[in-house]
Amino acid sequence: MVYVKKQGGHSELRQRDVGESMTTNHKMEEVEREEEIDPENNTQNQPLLKRNRTLSSNPLALVGAKVSYIESLDYEINENDLFKHDWRSRSRAQVLQYIFLKWLLAFLVGLLTGIIATLINLAIENIAGYKLLAVLKYIHTERYMMGFLYFTGINFILTFVAAFLCVCLAPTAAGPGIPEIKAYLNGVDTPNMYGATTLIVKIIGSIGAVSAGLDLGKEGPLVHIGSCIASLLGQGGPDNYRIKWRWLRYFNNDRDRRDLITCGASSGVCAAFRAPVGGVLFALEEVATWWRSALLWRTFFSTAVVVVVLRAFIEICNSGKCGLFGEGGLIMFDVSNVTVTYHVMDIVVVAVIGIIGGILGSLYNHVLHKILRLYNLINQKGRIHKLLLSLAAALFTSLCQYGLPFLAKCTPCDSSLPESVCPTNGRSGNFKQFNCPPGHYNDLATLLLTTNDDAVRNIFSTNTPKEYQPLSLLIFFALYCILGLITFGIAVPSGLFLPIILMGSGYGRLIGIYMGPHTNIDQGLFAVLGAASLMAGSMRMTVSLCVIFLELTNNLLLLPITMIVLLIAKTVGDSFNPSIYEIILHLKGLPFMDANPEPWMRNLTVGELVDVKAAVVTLQGVEKVANIVDVLKNTAHNGFPVMDDGVVPPVVGQANEAKELHGLILRAHLIQALKKKWFLKERKRTEDWEVREKFTWVDLAEREGRIEEVAVTSEEMELFVDLHPLTNTTPFTVLESTSVAKAMILFRQVGLRHLLVVPKYQASGVSPVIGILTRQDLLAHNILTVFPDLAKSKGREKRN
Amino acid sequence: MVYVKKQGGHSELRQRDVGESMTTNHKMEEVEREEEIDPENNTQNQPLLKRNRTLSSNPLALVGAKVSYIESLDYEINENDLFKHDWRSRSRAQVLQYIFLKWLLAFLVGLLTGIIATLINLAIENIAGYKLLAVLKYIHTERYMMGFLYFTGINFILTFVAAFLCVCLAPTAAGPGIPEIKAYLNGVDTPNMYGATTLIVKIIGSIGAVSAGLDLGKEGPLVHIGSCIASLLGQGGPDNYRIKWRWLRYFNNDRDRRDLITCGASSGVCAAFRAPVGGVLFALEEVATWWRSALLWRTFFSTAVVVVVLRAFIEICNSGKCGLFGEGGLIMFDVSNVTVTYHVMDIVVVAVIGIIGGILGSLYNHVLHKILRLYNLINQKGRIHKLLLSLAAALFTSLCQYGLPFLAKCTPCDSSLPESVCPTNGRSGNFKQFNCPPGHYNDLATLLLTTNDDAVRNIFSTNTPKEYQPLSLLIFFALYCILGLITFGIAVPSGLFLPIILMGSGYGRLIGIYMGPHTNIDQGLFAVLGAASLMAGSMRMTVSLCVIFLELTNNLLLLPITMIVLLIAKTVGDSFNPSIYEIILHLKGLPFMDANPEPWMRNLTVGELVDVKAAVVTLQGVEKVANIVDVLKNTAHNGFPVMDDGVVPPVVGQANEAKELHGLILRAHLIQALKKKWFLKERKRTEDWEVREKFTWVDLAEREGRIEEVAVTSEEMELFVDLHPLTNTTPFTVLESTSVAKAMILFRQVGLRHLLVVPKYQASGVSPVIGILTRQDLLAHNILTVFPDLAKSKGREKRN
Repeated sequence: MVYVKKQGGHSELRQRDVGESMTTNHKMEEVEREEEIDPENNTQNQPLLKRNRTLSSNPLALVGAKVSYIESLDYEINENDLFKHDWRSRSRAQVLQYIFLKWLLAFLVGLLTGIIATLINLAIENIAGYKLLAVLKYIHTERYMMGFLYFTGINFILTFVAAFLCVCLAPTAAGPGIPEIKAYLNGVDTPNMYGATTLIVKIIGSIGAVSAGLDLGKEGPLVHIGSCIASLLGQGGPDNYRIKWRWLRYFNNDRDRRDLITCGASSGVCAAFRAPVGGVLFALEEVATWWRSALLWRTFFSTAVVVVVLRAFIEICNSGKCGLFGEGGLIMFDVSNVTVTYHVMDIVVVAVIGIIGGILGSLYNHVLHKILRLYNLINQKGRIHKLLLSLAAALFTSLCQYGLPFLAKCTPCDSSLPESVCPTNGRSGNFKQFNCPPGHYNDLATLLLTTNDDAVRNIFSTNTPKEYQPLSLLIFFALYCILGLITFGIAVPSGLFLPIILMGSGYGRLIGIYMGPHTNIDQGLFAVLGAASLMAGSMRMTVSLCVIFLELTNNLLLLPITMIVLLIAKTVGDSFNPSIYEIILHLKGLPFMDANPEPWMRNLTVGELVDVKAAVVTLQGVEKVANIVDVLKNTAHNGFPVMDDGVVPPVVGQANEAKELHGLILRAHLIQALKKKWFLKERKRTEDWEVREKFTWVDLAEREGRIEEVAVTSEEMELFVDLHPLTNTTPFTVLESTSVAKAMILFRQVGLRHLLVVPKYQASGVSPVIGILTRQDLLAHNILTVFPDLAKSKGREKRN
Repeated sequence: MVYVKKQGGHSELRQRDVGESMTTNHKMEEVEREEEIDPENNTQNQPLLKRNRTLSSNPLALVGAKVSYIESLDYEINENDLFKHDWRSRSRAQVLQYIFLKWLLAFLVGLLTGIIATLINLAIENIAGYKLLAVLKYIHTERYMMGFLYFTGINFILTFVAAFLCVCLAPTAAGPGIPEIKAYLNGVDTPNMYGATTLIVKIIGSIGAVSAGLDLGKEGPLVHIGSCIASLLGQGGPDNYRIKWRWLRYFNNDRDRRDLITCGASSGVCAAFRAPVGGVLFALEEVATWWRSALLWRTFFSTAVVVVVLRAFIEICNSGKCGLFGEGGLIMFDVSNVTVTYHVMDIVVVAVIGIIGGILGSLYNHVLHKILRLYNLINQKGRIHKLLLSLAAALFTSLCQYGLPFLAKCTPCDSSLPESVCPTNGRSGNFKQFNCPPGHYNDLATLLLTTNDDAVRNIFSTNTPKEYQPLSLLIFFALYCILGLITFGIAVPSGLFLPIILMGSGYGRLIGIYMGPHTNIDQGLFAVLGAASLMAGSMRMTVSLCVIFLELTNNLLLLPITMIVLLIAKTVGDSFNPSIYEIILHLKGLPFMDANPEPWMRNLTVGELVDVKAAVVTLQGVEKVANIVDVLKNTAHNGFPVMDDGVVPPVVGQANEAKELHGLILRAHLIQALKKKWFLKERKRTEDWEVREKFTWVDLAEREGRIEEVAVTSEEMELFVDLHPLTNTTPFTVLESTSVAKAMILFRQVGLRHLLVVPKYQASGVSPVIGILTRQDLLAHNILTVFPDLAKSKGREKRN
């Protein structure tokens, strides 16, 4: 267990994760084998000096409850001879093809995400609707025990389906998926995240889990679903049944896939909230790492398509063809009919909500972090434990949702309300009769014994200042605090938005009741503001949340106060802990690269960093096959600098000891060269046309070969390969005197996978490249294990 | 006129600009002197080969109708010893001070922008209001000639004030200012753009020009005003009266100023449209080049403050204390009371509007480009010509606005309308009586004889399907097409938003009249969509325009169709020409760096680019004063690589001929060293504490010294300066084999001013740095003058 030692602060958690994966799958063995052959793994022989270990990467992370070997993505354009030739020879028609296909794919992403979101909503509204109707019938006939058994039984079965699928078929489908998408767009490839199985399990699991009344939303899963659709479309279908359509080959690279997944994520948010601008901004503010204004435009196109699809479905459903799907589901919390009146002085009240939201939000993040660590302990015991945990959460939820309304007093209906409004006994409605006599309603049942969407709509309801008793709201708030904490970590697709909205609206409305005499803001708006403040306090978004709330509530007059609440809640929350997504990313061990370097990174040069790494492995411009095979088998590196020796550079006269840095070659391209048996009998450089006969850019786009799959005979071992035409001649470089902070900015801004370190000295005998830095080398956490003293240095850089 | 020869495609225009500046000011002489001493200026001696000239920079641009010498900005952190020491020694309290001040400045930017925007609105509404009331009184008493003279006279005086101030005091205050802000945020410093004079002239000029009824808006000027406020606040006041407050010193750098100006620009848009989210998005999509999510948050804070200020003022004005300022001005075109009903099939109609908008928008861009070139011809003749041009435009506008309504037929009021609504005879109102008998209204007067804001509100008015005659709308549209083209280039502060909205709404409503029987979209919404489509067709923004329109019209149901219109119009427009802002940037010669490299840039390496530049000028680590003075006087460069010679690097054994690249030193820091007389008697390296006694980071933040102002005696010339502690040891570098495309991406993404080119060879005798690239070297236009064949190479890269 070599890597556990290197883990530093997180060794405890990581060790457990590893234990779990040992019992549940065999993937670990593969991971360990790769670890063992990593030449950098000499951690145990190091003296305990200040630099007590060599800097070594730890390419493991928790992906869908499994510890997996993760890779970086290649967003850099690999400018080798073949690429340049292809670039020059690409005709105008091909370029137009590419542009057309890019927009077609953005269209399809929007279309499919919209359709699937509608189907999910239809399924949830109908399943949950018929379930609730049956339960209410039992209650109406006072067969409470039967009602309970029916309610719990259905919820149990629905949860079982969702959890079983997630546990057995696609562990990556559990949870919201947003942190992994965030990591992907940052340059971290998490395996099995965007497959067809994951997509299907996510859809079914999300329907099951939400219909079961669990305290989770379909929003996060929809983002993941959108991204899966985008990824599948871009690669032409599921892994084993890909359409090998010629046009799609242009999209077989990490850059285009990144753009597509960004479109998918925006479409998902848009479909979840019917918020097209909010969806784009969410992707921009929270999910994406790089952004171009051209991409802004394309994601906007995707979300426009989603909105049109949703609108078309609503038109169809308005004619009553969608079963119980009606007002619910898509048009979430329309408060546009409310005249919002508030004065400048109301800002004080609004600020108080913001502060409380910030505190509660960061507290929620803190406790959820602890609980997720505890759940990891339970989950590592095996599939059956995961399943039991999910079912236990479902049972507890059902018990509370059914049982707690009996604690609430029955309230007589306001005589001004028509009988059709109060009390109601149907599936949805704001004044539920539940166990009350005619003319009375049970306010807690209105909030609990309904779908989550309806619960939000009910608690957001305006012009009903006396509807809810403070005690009922307190019970509601406390219950959803507990449910929000215990439900998130279970093995079903779960979104974080809705639980936080429910929690926040509860305390917001509670404040509204007590503030009522001092302000003219409606109680329903207090609930909205409470929800917004808790979202900002936990998720720490501002502009996108603001726009999402704007589009959700459909009332622009709310904008200024929403902005203030969000800003205050985020500021307060940020002073305690990072956002919930950052916490999850950290917990999963995904090597996310932050926008801001740590302050101490200015005090460390990349030269010092390279010094504590293993020596860089380089290849000759024309290299012996045996050496290539050797290097590929004995290292896990993905890029190797290619150097030419003894070439006299034309720019200087006397230097015959010159060395030339030709560029960087990728592992995948070396494997391609071996696979294609592109061997030479002697050490010589080839002509351009020779390589073009053997390779096309389509071959070089392929990244999936493994050296173990390549058979090389012992005669071939003595032959040579000319690496020049396959080498990327334009790798990004930094001087060894560059600070780590600057290297990190370059690495993240340009979206690199490898960064070459070149010497600041110019002399014969010096190697033109003294090291390679990768994502793992630039992570604060990894650097601190080698230079622990740095963390103590003064000053902080957060240039917010 | 050396630089005219180097100008390539734009030589004609540039020559004229230069001619103008020669007659109008003496700044050119200075510019020319700097040009003459530029050692790279050997263009005339070059043979006419393929590489027919050396690559040379052309740091001249049209700033406020003057040709000025422009500089790049330093967004890179200059990591020298002093900086690092300061960084380490900065206490936690200082960091908190900095963060607090950053937010305080963002708050003040919002506050002041909000207040000034309100005052501008108040002034405009009152001046224009009383003017129109008086004119209407003349008309009511049928004294048409007097009315005309009064109307024209007032407009003439108002325009004269605005134009006189702009021409004589602050030429940079003319126009919208948005292109210059865009260039600033891209890294181009345009002189005199953000001074106190510019701010005051812009405010008064904007009030005058808008009150005079010219076809221009206050939106663009407000963006410039916001940026001026931000810049002045950041530097502690006007240039000559700066508050030397210690805290503000932290903001004496280009990075923080850039962030502040971004906040200012967002606040300006927000104040113009009362669109806080739209303001942030406008800054993000159109204005800013770099963006961090932390900045998103801070600009959002500024716009939130603006909105609160505006709301407070509206509350005050609602009680009638603001004269004629009422519904007008701030709440622009509220159509929230309209129930928008449309079907999926209406998308066809919407698409047609989008297509027409795209075609008209790009046509507008094209014609405006021609007219601006013509105006440059006129403007170069001197101040009096500029003034006359402005006044001619004002006279023509007044003549048409007053005279054309007489062509329209009087329409009888709809009997269902109350008398107070139709006809009206006051300042604002939808059915103006004008010259008509009682019970009738003049529809063209409703659109023309009013403020531009009211005209937009009237043409956007909904549920009035029969209000406007097609002929009146046609006249309106044709008039505003002409006015929009002739007004923009005159020497007054002018925004582009409103003219385009007026034009677009005219043709939108016209289409609405003819489409009426085939759709249920209201005619007012047709006008809104027409305006949106023309904006997108000319300005080419999507998300931000969408949100601005959302916030303007206050109706979320419009969102999906607005999105579709914008996307289609932008797509159509993009297929013809670039956006209007890009055209203006190009026309002014501002070296804006695009996000996407040109396709042929992949076929050129930076090594080839450096080859055609003059040899790089380097300094020794410990340099003789005479050499430094010589280099500073004889070059215009702003950064010099610092090299150490003969130092044996510890990493290699035998190499005693090693050269070390120590880093890059800035001109400003060399001048500081000379000014402070930090001289050494012998060639030796100093200790850290010595330099810290002499310099503080505050000194190094100063960028304004000139070598001509530094007096160095002839004895001092023989002394030495240790440049090591002042040298930025972490400059960004690229290998000589890197393609220009990649270098450009690095340059723009990281925000550089200098990019060092290092050799790919490692040998003794090779210089560790073979060239420096600056912004000018990487501009497509400059490269093509040296490598004209490249443009013909096939393939296009636009990776949208």
